[in-house]
Amino acid sequence: MATVKSDISNLQDQAYSKLQVKNGAKIALLVMDGLGDIATRDQGYLTPLEAAQTPNLDALSKDSAQGRMIPVAPGITPGSGPGHLALFGYDPLQFEVGRGVIEALGLGLALKGGDVAVRGNFCTLNAAGLVTDRRAGRIPTETCEKLCAILSRKITRIGTTQVIIQPGKEHRFVIVFRGAGLEGPLSDTDPGRENLPIAPAKPEDPKSAKQKKAAKLVADFYKLALPLLKDQTPANGFLLRGIAHQPHIPTFEERYGLRAAALAVYPMYKGLAQLVGMTRIDGPQNIAEQFRRAVEVYDDYDFFFVHFKYTDKAGEDGNFAAKVKAIEEFDAALPILLAKRPDVIAITGDHSTPCALSGHSWHPQPVLLNSATCGWDKLDRFTETGANLGSLGIFEAKHLIRLMQANARMFAKFGA
Amino acid sequence: MATVKSDISNLQDQAYSKLQVKNGAKIALLVMDGLGDIATRDQGYLTPLEAAQTPNLDALSKDSAQGRMIPVAPGITPGSGPGHLALFGYDPLQFEVGRGVIEALGLGLALKGGDVAVRGNFCTLNAAGLVTDRRAGRIPTETCEKLCAILSRKITRIGTTQVIIQPGKEHRFVIVFRGAGLEGPLSDTDPGRENLPIAPAKPEDPKSAKQKKAAKLVADFYKLALPLLKDQTPANGFLLRGIAHQPHIPTFEERYGLRAAALAVYPMYKGLAQLVGMTRIDGPQNIAEQFRRAVEVYDDYDFFFVHFKYTDKAGEDGNFAAKVKAIEEFDAALPILLAKRPDVIAITGDHSTPCALSGHSWHPQPVLLNSATCGWDKLDRFTETGANLGSLGIFEAKHLIRLMQANARMFAKFGA
Repeated sequence: MATVKSDISNLQDQAYSKLQVKNGAKIALLVMDGLGDIATRDQGYLTPLEAAQTPNLDALSKDSAQGRMIPVAPGITPGSGPGHLALFGYDPLQFEVGRGVIEALGLGLALKGGDVAVRGNFCTLNAAGLVTDRRAGRIPTETCEKLCAILSRKITRIGTTQVIIQPGKEHRFVIVFRGAGLEGPLSDTDPGRENLPIAPAKPEDPKSAKQKKAAKLVADFYKLALPLLKDQTPANGFLLRGIAHQPHIPTFEERYGLRAAALAVYPMYKGLAQLVGMTRIDGPQNIAEQFRRAVEVYDDYDFFFVHFKYTDKAGEDGNFAAKVKAIEEFDAALPILLAKRPDVIAITGDHSTPCALSGHSWHPQPVLLNSATCGWDKLDRFTETGANLGSLGIFEAKHLIRLMQANARMFAKFGA
Repeated sequence: MATVKSDISNLQDQAYSKLQVKNGAKIALLVMDGLGDIATRDQGYLTPLEAAQTPNLDALSKDSAQGRMIPVAPGITPGSGPGHLALFGYDPLQFEVGRGVIEALGLGLALKGGDVAVRGNFCTLNAAGLVTDRRAGRIPTETCEKLCAILSRKITRIGTTQVIIQPGKEHRFVIVFRGAGLEGPLSDTDPGRENLPIAPAKPEDPKSAKQKKAAKLVADFYKLALPLLKDQTPANGFLLRGIAHQPHIPTFEERYGLRAAALAVYPMYKGLAQLVGMTRIDGPQNIAEQFRRAVEVYDDYDFFFVHFKYTDKAGEDGNFAAKVKAIEEFDAALPILLAKRPDVIAITGDHSTPCALSGHSWHPQPVLLNSATCGWDKLDRFTETGANLGSLGIFEAKHLIRLMQANARMFAKFGA
């Protein structure tokens, strides 16, 4: 649940919302996904940011402040969900988003507060109802789409609850239960290994009436769905995991008084932005188009979230050269947005994805903050090693939004 | 109220107070108000600390540690009250001090825990009792003093509550209600615009008996005071704002076991020091005299708070040259205190007041910490850019007092 768990951060939030003023300033948050990296011997002790040719970032570094950000907590490697929630100013430990919800967002489903989202795997059952293959031999995506269509045609509603079924890759799919009075989390129906029956989904909190209602709904869904699949091979059953509700998250506008636009190419990031109430601007297919579109809608919004995926992709592949190239592509497109001179610009990642690790990591990502009020940190480039020396220090990523607001002069003075 | 609201900081406080030992060491906290600044193009990318000639601070930097401090929370710009509470080790979000209290302190009134302090403006009322000028045409200070004298002469007490009235500049004055069982905050009696009647002061929490008592007191005060002003022109009424009580703050000695002396020139800072139970040492009119006086009373105290106002004044005026000059004046006087070799010296600001912003700001202020145990950070000068590289890092200002105590060897080891 999205309750605030810490008194100090509660006092901080109260102070921020009391001091907040609207002044029409424009703020841009430019996220190079997985930007942060580490300098290792195999890469000649350079990070991709250090190796890349970045004339536009270099120029911007003059007049900018720098620092590094801890995405969740020291040593914690975040997924895209927590990484972005932190950038949007929501403590990812307080606002936890279930795997089913993330999966649904990743498939492009727009979720509403209270929705219960579930990850599904098609599986194989024997005559006795025991699971013989938990992934049904990894059926092709087309088969998955066909099976989901069968279910979707017959099951659109259970009682007053709407049921939305969306195929994913191979054996994976997502179910969203949309109705009043539902809540997760429930236990998985996946027994975890073969030759066991499908487990019932049980409320994590046995006293929660909402969780009980959700558990009943899952059981009813099985009763309706299993008969529809009984003649299919090899996928004649399914297992459900990560059954959780979409938390009621205060929107970006409620929290910061900012009308926010999201310019992302990938559904997951559009979804994460929608989760906090940003407006998604669809259409652009690359970073230059994203910046151009931001410029087109510039007058209609106060805050622009621009997401660039390819730094993370290259990092995940352990492809140093590709990560350098992605940074250079971002740098080359940057002037399109800079022409508008947003009052505040932050450029950062949602986490680090070091090439040497071929995956997300816990290393604080570098951040550059540019405004008329930030001062210059005497750093000529934007790099990890440079950012270590910046005036922003190393701080929790959830504070970035507050620094952006401060730089936009959106806070009154606290106390006399 | 000044209750401890955070469990973690509660645990920290408990640990500190358990580990604390008295050893007779001397600690000096030297505050150049609004010291922090930013490097901008217009100032040749130098801060006043970088531009100033500071031979004594330079010499002290050798053997010192440096860092930067967040006064309240990331992005929050503090007033003098919260800025100083943090330096004194009190979380300004937990120990909030009302506007009336700050105003009273600024006029040199010594407040006691439980006092309800109120900001007043003389105003003009028409025959129907509607406010026609909320500032009574900004009457001269002498008129304000005359009106306050009229009220003070007749109203010294309401029931068992003492009433203290103190004139300020122009139409401004302060009332302090001193008695048992009172509490704020109450709503303002200022209707906020002309042609409305004086509003009643209402409890913020309608269930609070103490707030109700305070509201009744304010109503009774109006009944006594308005008739005394009825023949005055143009100031025949008054509006009250910021009606709040002085929180019960644990004293400096209770909290840190330190007898503290405050050497300040301006009443506001004497008042803030008294708020936490420091002894004010009156007399000195400039920084050299303040240091000399500190040396004279050196044996009677463990902790010396020395406040220097002119860096902030220059910053507020956007006067770079004046801020440089103020820093040089402070630097020139410093050897008077250094001759005594206090065991621990911290030099910092209560916040930043960048010349480029002509006002307080959220930028972390630099801090220099000198003791036999701090180590040298290899920094030859005390500047913002240097402080970014220091061993203290960027930390919340409320922790400075603990670092000073530690450097004074005032904490036993925690755990075996």
